[in-house]
Amino acid sequence: MAEEVMNNKQIILKHYVEGYPKESDMEFKNNSIKLNVPEGSNVVVLKNLYLSCDPYMRNRMSKLEGSYVESFTPGSPITGYGVSKVLESGDPNFQKGDLVWGMTGWEEYSIVTATHSSLLKINHDKDVPLSYYTGILGMPGMTAYAGFYEICSPKKGENVFVSAASGAVGQLVGQFAKMLGCYVVGSAGTKEKVDLLKNKFGFDEAFNYKEEQDLDATLKRYFPDGIDIYFENVGGKMLDAVLLNMKLHGRIAVCGMISQYNLKKTEGVHNLFNVIAKRIRMEGFLVFDYYHLYPKYLEIIIQQIKAKNIVYVEDIAEGLESAPNALVGLFSGSNVGKQIVMVSR
Amino acid sequence: MAEEVMNNKQIILKHYVEGYPKESDMEFKNNSIKLNVPEGSNVVVLKNLYLSCDPYMRNRMSKLEGSYVESFTPGSPITGYGVSKVLESGDPNFQKGDLVWGMTGWEEYSIVTATHSSLLKINHDKDVPLSYYTGILGMPGMTAYAGFYEICSPKKGENVFVSAASGAVGQLVGQFAKMLGCYVVGSAGTKEKVDLLKNKFGFDEAFNYKEEQDLDATLKRYFPDGIDIYFENVGGKMLDAVLLNMKLHGRIAVCGMISQYNLKKTEGVHNLFNVIAKRIRMEGFLVFDYYHLYPKYLEIIIQQIKAKNIVYVEDIAEGLESAPNALVGLFSGSNVGKQIVMVSR
Repeated sequence: MAEEVMNNKQIILKHYVEGYPKESDMEFKNNSIKLNVPEGSNVVVLKNLYLSCDPYMRNRMSKLEGSYVESFTPGSPITGYGVSKVLESGDPNFQKGDLVWGMTGWEEYSIVTATHSSLLKINHDKDVPLSYYTGILGMPGMTAYAGFYEICSPKKGENVFVSAASGAVGQLVGQFAKMLGCYVVGSAGTKEKVDLLKNKFGFDEAFNYKEEQDLDATLKRYFPDGIDIYFENVGGKMLDAVLLNMKLHGRIAVCGMISQYNLKKTEGVHNLFNVIAKRIRMEGFLVFDYYHLYPKYLEIIIQQIKAKNIVYVEDIAEGLESAPNALVGLFSGSNVGKQIVMVSR
Repeated sequence: MAEEVMNNKQIILKHYVEGYPKESDMEFKNNSIKLNVPEGSNVVVLKNLYLSCDPYMRNRMSKLEGSYVESFTPGSPITGYGVSKVLESGDPNFQKGDLVWGMTGWEEYSIVTATHSSLLKINHDKDVPLSYYTGILGMPGMTAYAGFYEICSPKKGENVFVSAASGAVGQLVGQFAKMLGCYVVGSAGTKEKVDLLKNKFGFDEAFNYKEEQDLDATLKRYFPDGIDIYFENVGGKMLDAVLLNMKLHGRIAVCGMISQYNLKKTEGVHNLFNVIAKRIRMEGFLVFDYYHLYPKYLEIIIQQIKAKNIVYVEDIAEGLESAPNALVGLFSGSNVGKQIVMVSR
């Protein structure tokens, strides 16, 4: 097989990050890559199509020890979930031309092993956008599904509050809760997102937390009888206000704390005594523990998308060059819906 | 029936309390009481024998709204769990001479209704001290039992940490965990208590948190592999250190936060992100939700006491006059074991 050397644009993490990440923490680099599978190797050569920007990636930009994720390697490309096309494969489970999703590099082409990248083959239904495998049909979708159904113990008629509600996970949690017959309120950081929550995702109510002076009073306004279920994506002050407004035997599914990831010292949470007084169950979870449910989830959710019972909003940045800006934007909330980067169609 | 008017010494809450309670927040008062049951009334007239000092009583000294407990009434006697003898009864379920436990007043004689006071008749086994119904055979015992078995999901061989471990609840949780074959470490605030934990209650290890500069390092020393179960009695800095040392899928039973009850602003808890990364379940509970298990618990625990598989340490203050000092002492940790007040033998 002739060696095929290609130009390979990459997004490199320059150094570990403290505080808010900046575009200048990353650099755009032209590299080259041999697209062949070496004799006897089981690697898979990928052409990356869509890359996913997810809040957990902020943690990987820091120097971590013994965390649930590994640090990125300074000087190397950022890695994350993506949708790719197989160009060559030394792995018998994948063939040239296959569409796959899993962990890949922030670059045009990546060479990965299927197990290390958790590669899954996509059986592409043309009625559903391929990019959805970075979101509703991928990790964020499974996160919403496992978090809501497995952790929240939801019941019809319960009061559900979702923070970061227009994001990749939140928009789905709210829709799942509405389908179950819950009263659902979401918070987000712009008027545009609040409108989306109410008009597109069908939340009963939504508010812009940046315009609220007193989150406790805000929550009392939307939940005069209290909150049964809080789907936690932000942490800090919002969690403190929620604790004051939980109902007896309420449940808090702790999915993320995006408001805290860029702080050198996190905000203290002061109202934890409510966990006792209200007998609250507060439970953290990671999607990795629930992938055994993925085939079932995928089947259900594709039906729901096609039946138009569930909608999904993506914010697509065009071109690999736009990836640093897109990732950094997650932490100021500049994305509207699930943030992805289109590398190639 | 002739009216019998008796002198009735009482401990009165003078006013709502802010910060640490002081003896001077309470006053000793001589009052009088008619010990008769009015015609047609279902009240029960009690002679109080033992009164219980419990940390939750601090909350009742504050002005509360919509809390899980009611405020004490300034100008009226403090109320709490106690062991009493029935002098007269208008309630067909109780007879003169019965021994009972339930909510009573901090006074020599109280007139209560059985339902409002949750009065339960004591079938007194002479091999077990009557005072135990304020502790191991009463509310704190049920708290330890429900918290450990119903909330912690304990398994043999797991690593268990108990704070305020020599207290009314903690000493039992540690012994329950040892009986199940767990590795158990407790924290307390004096050398005497630490010795008690190791030598009397059979904890594997124990430490004086007041002598530790860095609780995170301390916990790493006692739990190099991490903590599976934390039985939380103190809150604040200890909780923050524990969160750094929990194992994956660890459980935190949130029973109390005594270190926080006297603070105008509670300490902030900063390490809650670990709830996600380690998939921790943190669950608050109140004993009131578990009293359906009480008959079963009582049967088991009396057997265990008589078989000397379980020991219980009480700190008995003599005389109603000593009650304010005993209650205040809970919050500086001056009690060694379950704090009670003996009003009358």
